[in-house]
Amino acid sequence: MSLANRSLVTIDDLSASEIESVFSLAREMEGGIEKQTDVCQGMIMASLFFEPSTRTRLSFEAAMHRLGGNVIGVSDVESTSLAKGESIADMARIVGSYADILVLRHPWEGAAKVVADYAGVPVINAGDGGHQHPTQTLLDLYTIRKERGSLKGLTIALWGDLKYGRTTHSLILALAKFGANMLFCPSPGLEVPPNVIRKLITEYGGEIETHDVTKKLDESFPIDAVYKTPESPHQLAMMPDVNLEVELRKGVDALYVTRTQKERFSDGESKGKSRKFPVVNRKFLSGKEFRKTMVMHPLPRVDELDYDVDSDPRGMYFKQAAHGVPIRMALLSLLLGCKKPSTFEKDFPEPQVEYPVYNRGYAVTCPNGRCVSVQETETKYLVPEFLITSRDPLTLRCVYCEHGFRPGFVASTDWHEGTLEHKKYHRVDSHFARTIKIENLVLFDTERQAQAMGFMPSHFVSESPDDK
Amino acid sequence: MSLANRSLVTIDDLSASEIESVFSLAREMEGGIEKQTDVCQGMIMASLFFEPSTRTRLSFEAAMHRLGGNVIGVSDVESTSLAKGESIADMARIVGSYADILVLRHPWEGAAKVVADYAGVPVINAGDGGHQHPTQTLLDLYTIRKERGSLKGLTIALWGDLKYGRTTHSLILALAKFGANMLFCPSPGLEVPPNVIRKLITEYGGEIETHDVTKKLDESFPIDAVYKTPESPHQLAMMPDVNLEVELRKGVDALYVTRTQKERFSDGESKGKSRKFPVVNRKFLSGKEFRKTMVMHPLPRVDELDYDVDSDPRGMYFKQAAHGVPIRMALLSLLLGCKKPSTFEKDFPEPQVEYPVYNRGYAVTCPNGRCVSVQETETKYLVPEFLITSRDPLTLRCVYCEHGFRPGFVASTDWHEGTLEHKKYHRVDSHFARTIKIENLVLFDTERQAQAMGFMPSHFVSESPDDK
Amino acid sequence: MSLANRSLVTIDDLSASEIESVFSLAREMEGGIEKQTDVCQGMIMASLFFEPSTRTRLSFEAAMHRLGGNVIGVSDVESTSLAKGESIADMARIVGSYADILVLRHPWEGAAKVVADYAGVPVINAGDGGHQHPTQTLLDLYTIRKERGSLKGLTIALWGDLKYGRTTHSLILALAKFGANMLFCPSPGLEVPPNVIRKLITEYGGEIETHDVTKKLDESFPIDAVYKTPESPHQLAMMPDVNLEVELRKGVDALYVTRTQKERFSDGESKGKSRKFPVVNRKFLSGKEFRKTMVMHPLPRVDELDYDVDSDPRGMYFKQAAHGVPIRMALLSLLLGCKKPSTFEKDFPEPQVEYPVYNRGYAVTCPNGRCVSVQETETKYLVPEFLITSRDPLTLRCVYCEHGFRPGFVASTDWHEGTLEHKKYHRVDSHFARTIKIENLVLFDTERQAQAMGFMPSHFVSESPDDK
Repeated sequence: MSLANRSLVTIDDLSASEIESVFSLAREMEGGIEKQTDVCQGMIMASLFFEPSTRTRLSFEAAMHRLGGNVIGVSDVESTSLAKGESIADMARIVGSYADILVLRHPWEGAAKVVADYAGVPVINAGDGGHQHPTQTLLDLYTIRKERGSLKGLTIALWGDLKYGRTTHSLILALAKFGANMLFCPSPGLEVPPNVIRKLITEYGGEIETHDVTKKLDESFPIDAVYKTPESPHQLAMMPDVNLEVELRKGVDALYVTRTQKERFSDGESKGKSRKFPVVNRKFLSGKEFRKTMVMHPLPRVDELDYDVDSDPRGMYFKQAAHGVPIRMALLSLLLGCKKPSTFEKDFPEPQVEYPVYNRGYAVTCPNGRCVSVQETETKYLVPEFLITSRDPLTLRCVYCEHGFRPGFVASTDWHEGTLEHKKYHRVDSHFARTIKIENLVLFDTERQAQAMGFMPSHFVSESPDDK
Repeated sequence: MSLANRSLVTIDDLSASEIESVFSLAREMEGGIEKQTDVCQGMIMASLFFEPSTRTRLSFEAAMHRLGGNVIGVSDVESTSLAKGESIADMARIVGSYADILVLRHPWEGAAKVVADYAGVPVINAGDGGHQHPTQTLLDLYTIRKERGSLKGLTIALWGDLKYGRTTHSLILALAKFGANMLFCPSPGLEVPPNVIRKLITEYGGEIETHDVTKKLDESFPIDAVYKTPESPHQLAMMPDVNLEVELRKGVDALYVTRTQKERFSDGESKGKSRKFPVVNRKFLSGKEFRKTMVMHPLPRVDELDYDVDSDPRGMYFKQAAHGVPIRMALLSLLLGCKKPSTFEKDFPEPQVEYPVYNRGYAVTCPNGRCVSVQETETKYLVPEFLITSRDPLTLRCVYCEHGFRPGFVASTDWHEGTLEHKKYHRVDSHFARTIKIENLVLFDTERQAQAMGFMPSHFVSESPDDK
Repeated sequence: MSLANRSLVTIDDLSASEIESVFSLAREMEGGIEKQTDVCQGMIMASLFFEPSTRTRLSFEAAMHRLGGNVIGVSDVESTSLAKGESIADMARIVGSYADILVLRHPWEGAAKVVADYAGVPVINAGDGGHQHPTQTLLDLYTIRKERGSLKGLTIALWGDLKYGRTTHSLILALAKFGANMLFCPSPGLEVPPNVIRKLITEYGGEIETHDVTKKLDESFPIDAVYKTPESPHQLAMMPDVNLEVELRKGVDALYVTRTQKERFSDGESKGKSRKFPVVNRKFLSGKEFRKTMVMHPLPRVDELDYDVDSDPRGMYFKQAAHGVPIRMALLSLLLGCKKPSTFEKDFPEPQVEYPVYNRGYAVTCPNGRCVSVQETETKYLVPEFLITSRDPLTLRCVYCEHGFRPGFVASTDWHEGTLEHKKYHRVDSHFARTIKIENLVLFDTERQAQAMGFMPSHFVSESPDDK
């Protein structure tokens, strides 16, 4: 196990034991944070922030300086060549020839993967749109683990904007990886996205029990869904609401509050959507279930977390933020190969799911308008690529933004070998569609797209033309 | 006397002998500016500039690098989490956990005090709105002192925008502290603010003689007011205008020219207000009183100081700017505890004024719209706090922006002990108001505010309802 | 020959053998790029970027860090005192007192010369408007020289925006200096500016043969003009088009592709002007003349250079960009005096042209609206200055932006010694104008200007008043 020359794009890029080795080194560095100035002496980190940031950027830069390294950087998209229409792949290749490691924040989902693919040096994702923010997740986990000793079997409540809060997407998967249970408490309309839920169920094997949000909205602790780790006793997930409340009396280990990411709302979404959601303050925290709860927040906060919690010993968010420096010091020095990870005798079991890949390079595209693969400057060179995460119903996951979706129409490459009249497309849910072998699949978003490529509708398609 | 771990928010935070110790170290560093790279080795300065700046930011950063330290920073408010609605207290706590010292420029008056209150590490105010800019004052004083040997008894003319030019507010108080005399020559409408004048008189014991501006505006050297240091012979201040001119023939030691800070004008203020004010050029400087005058300017200049002075030996402004680096090197290394201040046998007498504090946390607020204490994001946690700088007339000074003002209405907490009918409010200038003990005072901006808090008007208030 | 304490404003500031010494040191540094951290230990580079840039700024900053030096900087004109109306001369003097070397990018043509004139420390031009970008030229030359061993006698095709692409202006002159031949292939309307052409002919002694662009536009390789180095056999330049194509079969050594600099178009220029110009892709490069061609690009690219060339061994542009770091390391360490240039036995012949200077400080001004000498903040101190590059027709070259032009009217200072009736002005192309001695010339843009300064029209001027 070596971390040298690897990139961190999603939290899945690190196994649980690799994460433990980052924690182990972070703890060591925390012990003498000003004595590490020879660890990365002479090395250069490029700090590429194409979206607003204070804490993440500054803590990465502080971490690199604490290690004795240097920083070059961009903190404003307007002042860069990206404003001249350059692709991020070109930017990655060039900055990769100047620096030893790249740290990237970018509004496009999947941007960090593209930069990692082209830079030629390690790349750390410091937030790519609403997708992931894995170093935030590392310091979140580190904070809980340091206070509680372990993550296994803990109950963590996730609170607020679980849709656009990218920090929570990484965190949810990481908590599952370490065997924690989760309570999802989203603001109305800002639930955990289906692709994250699907990944949880299919790859981590846990169970999700959803609750009726509208019924519980006005109550003090509006739980929308519960995730039970597979190694836990399964009672909770199978209980009705009343028993859930009984179970909660055992207490919540951490309440992870998030800000509503209004800047990511699409135009149709009301900005006032989360108005009625309860504020986390000392009164809210007076319930028995919160007696020993760590109150966490990735910060910045706006109104969702009251200042009266600052002086409460349960308020962990400033300690959590301070952990950003040692965690990032540990990560930088491991990826740069300046430190070796400690080895752990017993490794954690990893989710081992291998999905077939679909990358014909034409026809079907990612429907997520924020995905890097559909941006005008990037389509010139990027080949769309998808994992087939389910055969029935046929479901794709974009390898860049990890958005899950179902294509509309399919055909088979079998026609190559047969006569031209076999060059037909079908509805994805038709009987025939299900018979095509995975390696022969050709997928389309629309009928128009299929026809533009010379395919003709099959009988079944033409029978219901109103579906086009 | 130690300067380690202290903050510099206003020039008053340093005693005269502490300032002398900064000068002494600055001179030492100026002697070998490239040989100091081990002084702050491995330390991190956060350079937080939320307003435009070239020279201040760059000279702080150059100073830290000359000391062998590192810099992390923000130079654009748009690219930070403050744009997401974060309070500066949260920002301070977090950046304070990344860096060893913070340097802050911010448009809100009093912002540096808030950051110093929350950061947990030393904070240097690099300009907070129109309030103060103490390191500029240090290098201004250093420049005069280096050229003239001492500040005591010198005559310094302050020229231009004395209202919004924050550099002059710090400088005026510092010059008074060192026993210099001052001539105030403001552009019309841009006179020294009343709170600075009041502080000068009450705390430094000097005398102010005002002159009729309108009468003198078209003359070549339009003096608006004269400040005489208390230890000087008092003749000048008591003389009529003719004698002032006689006195001036002794010469002005320094002419401190400032740019009109149009960006701080409130909407009502005409941008063309200072049009007729004389330009400082070689012709202007041909008068006898300017024969040995040091011409100073905090820069940037626009039109108030002509380029023909650049080659004149009296032009000191580029030398003055260059002093920014050694002064800031000295200050950084002292506050970081990397250097110890030299001790001076004889200390200067310090103004010793202790005012009572008013901080009930409700009702009266600072009327300065630029004050940090009235900003939407800051009112969530900041408790308004005031010094009672005068009992009659009752006058408050905001502890954040140092703005002085008079509240409208008062009540007494005596009603707590009596019957409810004592819960009455009074005009601040009423007889009854003057009888309330300072520790019992409750202050209101308006009657509406008093009534909203359950107080009723006293007889005298209701007699003149048109005053509301 | 020493490079210490010198500035690099235009590529002409370095002789060919000085350039060779930069290359020699760059190659040495490329061999151990991480072992140079003691070369500029403790020194400070100010990185002043008043226009968008990624690669140039980051590679300068990376270079300084690789040398062990520190960086202070500005990357956004909005956040600096220039936004307060400060002149760049003032900025230069102040930053020059903070840092050991300045690197400047600025939108005004000639800005780097002004900064170099005032800073008091070495200044490197990192691009001044459409004028020059000499370090880009150094890395371009370095790339060709490294691949081909020498520049002499090579054939380099320059492609795309040769009008606003400042990188090409520096490159054209440098290629001429090293004895290379050039093929100019501009997008329609974006030809090499006349002042560059004039300099090539008069100072480098080569020959230019122009071709009919419109006739050749739709062909695959639209050559507009050919420059033959004087030491080459002159057949090519004197050949008709058919033979040019014969000659081309020998092959193009490098094809230097540039992006259309739409951001520099004046309002009148159509943004769609270059639409029909061929894209450089593998198909385009399939011609015999490109068999061994190095494909270069200063980057960023937009659509003019296809991604399909990236994997082609002829694509040199990422290698070219990577050379930015060692070239800038070499240059910084030489100008800072931290390294000495190697000496070459045989020097290259340098163009030795001495032009008379015209700098009366009044009347004629540079007609280039982007020239630093005509900007409102700079006219307060800058004296216009021109080289008289030709006597007949009388032609001036601005010493700042190097724009060439012809003044409208002339007079002679002879009238000082004669009677007032001699104080007359003449058309520049009149017989009398040609008789005025160069040292007596007084030049005007317009008749109005001449009259405003007290000159009267001569007979010949008044004969054609419609010319005013």
